[in-house]
Amino acid sequence: MSTAKLQTAVMGATGYSGFELARLLVRHPMLAEPLFLRREGEESSIPLDEVYPHLSGNGSYPLKPFSWETLRSSGVNLLFMATPHELSRELIPEALARGVRVVDLSGAWRLKCLQNRAVYGLTDKDPQRAAELDNSAVYGLPELHRQSIADAALVANPGCYPTSIIVALAPLVRAGLIDVEHGIICDSKSGVSGAGKKPTAKTHFCEVADNLSAYSLFAHRHTGEMLEQLNVTADNLIFSPHLLPIPRGILSTIYARLRQPMTASAVESCLREFYSGSHWIRIFAAGKLPQIQYSIRTNFCDVGFSLAADGKRIIMVSCLDNLIKGAAGQAVQNMNVMYGWSEREGLQ
Amino acid sequence: MSTAKLQTAVMGATGYSGFELARLLVRHPMLAEPLFLRREGEESSIPLDEVYPHLSGNGSYPLKPFSWETLRSSGVNLLFMATPHELSRELIPEALARGVRVVDLSGAWRLKCLQNRAVYGLTDKDPQRAAELDNSAVYGLPELHRQSIADAALVANPGCYPTSIIVALAPLVRAGLIDVEHGIICDSKSGVSGAGKKPTAKTHFCEVADNLSAYSLFAHRHTGEMLEQLNVTADNLIFSPHLLPIPRGILSTIYARLRQPMTASAVESCLREFYSGSHWIRIFAAGKLPQIQYSIRTNFCDVGFSLAADGKRIIMVSCLDNLIKGAAGQAVQNMNVMYGWSEREGLQ
Amino acid sequence: MSTAKLQTAVMGATGYSGFELARLLVRHPMLAEPLFLRREGEESSIPLDEVYPHLSGNGSYPLKPFSWETLRSSGVNLLFMATPHELSRELIPEALARGVRVVDLSGAWRLKCLQNRAVYGLTDKDPQRAAELDNSAVYGLPELHRQSIADAALVANPGCYPTSIIVALAPLVRAGLIDVEHGIICDSKSGVSGAGKKPTAKTHFCEVADNLSAYSLFAHRHTGEMLEQLNVTADNLIFSPHLLPIPRGILSTIYARLRQPMTASAVESCLREFYSGSHWIRIFAAGKLPQIQYSIRTNFCDVGFSLAADGKRIIMVSCLDNLIKGAAGQAVQNMNVMYGWSEREGLQ
Amino acid sequence: MSTAKLQTAVMGATGYSGFELARLLVRHPMLAEPLFLRREGEESSIPLDEVYPHLSGNGSYPLKPFSWETLRSSGVNLLFMATPHELSRELIPEALARGVRVVDLSGAWRLKCLQNRAVYGLTDKDPQRAAELDNSAVYGLPELHRQSIADAALVANPGCYPTSIIVALAPLVRAGLIDVEHGIICDSKSGVSGAGKKPTAKTHFCEVADNLSAYSLFAHRHTGEMLEQLNVTADNLIFSPHLLPIPRGILSTIYARLRQPMTASAVESCLREFYSGSHWIRIFAAGKLPQIQYSIRTNFCDVGFSLAADGKRIIMVSCLDNLIKGAAGQAVQNMNVMYGWSEREGLQ
Repeated sequence: MSTAKLQTAVMGATGYSGFELARLLVRHPMLAEPLFLRREGEESSIPLDEVYPHLSGNGSYPLKPFSWETLRSSGVNLLFMATPHELSRELIPEALARGVRVVDLSGAWRLKCLQNRAVYGLTDKDPQRAAELDNSAVYGLPELHRQSIADAALVANPGCYPTSIIVALAPLVRAGLIDVEHGIICDSKSGVSGAGKKPTAKTHFCEVADNLSAYSLFAHRHTGEMLEQLNVTADNLIFSPHLLPIPRGILSTIYARLRQPMTASAVESCLREFYSGSHWIRIFAAGKLPQIQYSIRTNFCDVGFSLAADGKRIIMVSCLDNLIKGAAGQAVQNMNVMYGWSEREGLQ
Repeated sequence: MSTAKLQTAVMGATGYSGFELARLLVRHPMLAEPLFLRREGEESSIPLDEVYPHLSGNGSYPLKPFSWETLRSSGVNLLFMATPHELSRELIPEALARGVRVVDLSGAWRLKCLQNRAVYGLTDKDPQRAAELDNSAVYGLPELHRQSIADAALVANPGCYPTSIIVALAPLVRAGLIDVEHGIICDSKSGVSGAGKKPTAKTHFCEVADNLSAYSLFAHRHTGEMLEQLNVTADNLIFSPHLLPIPRGILSTIYARLRQPMTASAVESCLREFYSGSHWIRIFAAGKLPQIQYSIRTNFCDVGFSLAADGKRIIMVSCLDNLIKGAAGQAVQNMNVMYGWSEREGLQ
Repeated sequence: MSTAKLQTAVMGATGYSGFELARLLVRHPMLAEPLFLRREGEESSIPLDEVYPHLSGNGSYPLKPFSWETLRSSGVNLLFMATPHELSRELIPEALARGVRVVDLSGAWRLKCLQNRAVYGLTDKDPQRAAELDNSAVYGLPELHRQSIADAALVANPGCYPTSIIVALAPLVRAGLIDVEHGIICDSKSGVSGAGKKPTAKTHFCEVADNLSAYSLFAHRHTGEMLEQLNVTADNLIFSPHLLPIPRGILSTIYARLRQPMTASAVESCLREFYSGSHWIRIFAAGKLPQIQYSIRTNFCDVGFSLAADGKRIIMVSCLDNLIKGAAGQAVQNMNVMYGWSEREGLQ
Repeated sequence: MSTAKLQTAVMGATGYSGFELARLLVRHPMLAEPLFLRREGEESSIPLDEVYPHLSGNGSYPLKPFSWETLRSSGVNLLFMATPHELSRELIPEALARGVRVVDLSGAWRLKCLQNRAVYGLTDKDPQRAAELDNSAVYGLPELHRQSIADAALVANPGCYPTSIIVALAPLVRAGLIDVEHGIICDSKSGVSGAGKKPTAKTHFCEVADNLSAYSLFAHRHTGEMLEQLNVTADNLIFSPHLLPIPRGILSTIYARLRQPMTASAVESCLREFYSGSHWIRIFAAGKLPQIQYSIRTNFCDVGFSLAADGKRIIMVSCLDNLIKGAAGQAVQNMNVMYGWSEREGLQ
């Protein structure tokens, strides 16, 4: 860790996740002033603080057009891609070739299994190189892959829904305590910012307010991440997302069956031990359940549970902020791991 | 059916369900002007249209103190109880003894099984008479019990959550198509009016807005109704309620496994046939899902579903307005059945 | 009034106001089944009940392409235009020439003064004919222009904001009680449906929720209607709209100075007398104020006020549902007046 | 400024403002761990992080019972009172007598004029001492009273509404540019947290959601602060609060008349010069208006305006977070001034 500050760049800082990331990076103590880049052809060149007047009063945030030359001349060490997966897939191989480390917030590099990746319809200029990168990319859930992230050139930042579900399930699944074949059901509810900043019929205030809807049943592209990280098959996990009338936050209610009856305190211990040393995971005592309000605007993922009287049926409840632990905050946490800093740095 | 208009009374018209009921009854074409009653000792004697200025401009709605004499002298034929279950349990035996038919919106008379009823902690002055009434009370879900409701002296109006879940599941469960032993999971989300009008920490705007929370896991007292009506055991059904940041509406997402693989059209046919002739149930075509907005402020219960590629795992989505089909509207529908009127009367 | 039912048609039934109008018309007892028309070139020909599943269960609502021939062969007597003002300006002269009466929900024909109309940037094929129609068109606020509406061929349905403000101010202004030269200030707050159904950055859920914003200060095009109907100059009235994080409803807070000190009861009497016989205006007793919840989903415009201790400074508060009394409900009320029916018909 | 960290205490940390203050203080770099106190007789002794699980994961926050001895033995230098005004009025004289400086978030010590103070119905044990303190207490709006705050023993933290209105109006009023006699109108809209944490009918989710209401017209007790700080009479300023369906944030729309026509740039310059060096006030360029979203969860008060074509009528729009710049953040800013630290300290 040198005394010189790290030079970061963000591609796509005007979207909701990208803007949240910008907010975090400008206050991060280990960083030089970040470079905010916009895509070629994107007409707007207005500073980020004009797009988001929330930011003003703390300096100006110019948005520069992306070019490799700009990256090089600015001495960028680490590039955050908060872009559609097609663009991430296109630019990242060259960034890596140029020696720039990358944290990608899209779904482009998260999946190892070709079949799971098919939902993204990705095409590559250099398929062989892409396949190598698919192999070497590290799934950026620090609580599961801390060591690999530290050494990675390319970190694939997890999806918001998968983070909430994998964090809750990993301890019990990895310990072999869950009867996976019986089937796991993940009923998730998300705020609207998860659907992106582009105005659509689905995100119109009047369609969302006073409403709740389920969507993409048996068909959401975040499912693959859960299957791969938990090592279960599509037959054994159902993921059902719902759109909540709130701007941000996810609550996942997860139903599973334990192989053997357990006590609540045994379950709680299993969770606490697994996340011992992981500051950003908060385990709730048996009988207490997280709510979206508790973790919103923080990098925490909160996990609680309730056990049936039979000690076998378990309901887990997991909450996080989809733009922070589910996107920008986790990206910063990954950076902290990549550079050997405290995982809390810049996230308090 | 005589030409004289039916005289109804509502006990508890100032709560959310009671007020919704008042709104429906004053416009119902077969009814004389309803009598609105308040509990003895309830200090407020202000007219209902002052409690709810929404009502004003259409006449005055005095709230009279309850007494048996008032009931008698007004010639009340049918009494709606929109009261806490303790009061329903106390007053209804005498109302019936006096020849007044009753639709009870509380949970006091819904459950046949003593064990299920225990959650209400009911006590009776005349336990033998109460036990007889427990037997003769009819569960007021017209789509399941039309004939018995027509003849009933006491109709126990279903809970809001159970209505949404029983309506969705009954066709497939009764046809033996669901593998009940595998377990059915009911993940329900409700608007705040379901928690009642009394101000509490739980219903404070700042605790509900921008939030979502699960509560009463493995312990909600509505569960018994589902078990009894669907004829399943507590081991085989999980019900998990959540509090949504909206005033009204319920969406239930229900997970089950079919005994044999089915096609979507076979499932759709089963549902449509079961509810053929039931105006207030809308079955959605396969691939379309109900949303809370569609049924809110109506007496419809909407049911849709999605089937996994394996044809065995099914997700059902069911929506209704907790104050209408989940309470007051269903009470009116029950009255319509009790008096031989069209079930649509007064509910359009 | 013949026994044959009136044949109506709605152009533009898929927008928020148009849909609300459709909902009202299909239940109106004096009408044949309304004809729903879509613009030429509008790709979608799906029935209205598929665009709005809320409607389903009560029949099908096909959307037919607009043509004069369709209008003629269907025997349309009355055409509702729930369309952008440009289209209203283009089609209405021919409709009238063909003997079809029209209620126009756009701003195309509301303004008498050329200067006020300039904000709409209207162009006419036949300017002379258009000028005649500008003259003969009646501003459709039944409480002010009942008699002219009864005889009108073309009724220009008022804007939502102007309805709330004109209804509140007309009694005192017309009685000469307000010191108009001192200046009247109208601070209005509206739900999002007033901004239309088209998804825009402004109507994105995340931009509206947890927010409030003022817009179009000194520049909103609804101002002209207020000036003309109240007969005041632009120097003497300020109108400031704000966007509320709710789907529907308007509350206007209006500040004025009385020429002479008055008592609250004198003010209340003035209001009550002016609207005596006007069912859809509710005057609140001094000291009670309307709220958006009271009038929402009704055709009522509620008016209350508070008077300073000096008896000269008055604050009026006026509420209505922007889609009903502010648009579709008022259009139906206008139809009722045009055909000599009770103004309450179809609006209860 | 010594190297020893300042010892603070918060009385009333469980209310919304008090909790926000606690959140800020625990992260303030110049402070020792703050002491959180609860009133005698308040039954709950559970730690603050159990009342607000949002806080957990960052240490424990015990709530100790208040006593003078606790204050003394903990070496408290600065006491924040986030309590009802009666308690502030009762305890603060003794705190000051014991040499503890105080920032009071209630309305107890804000008003110099006896008549304005009457709305609080305050009683004092030692009226003479109280009168002295009324005189010496400093109104804690740092942008107006920086120098006096630095030296004050007792700082009366301003109300949320007055902050938004005084900040907007002070520059033009003090420069004599506003025709005060014509009358100033302040139409304010506030989120629900301003009404406090106690559950009431007014704060029930179902009464607030989808609603807007005006209240306390000509009668809100915050009016006195505006009159005193702006030096205008009650005849010349109207303040009208409204309750918004959002948890937090205030937007005030302010209407005034200038003595002489001005250009927008002259107005903007006046504002910018007045607040030159005041980091927490953001002046918006002419034609741009603040929204609640921009300043929420920050200590900024945002001010924008729009000028009529006549150059005389001005509308100012001012936004802030009622719990931060309107309460806890301003209290921290006052502390920063009192101890000679940067006003930004602990508020970024």
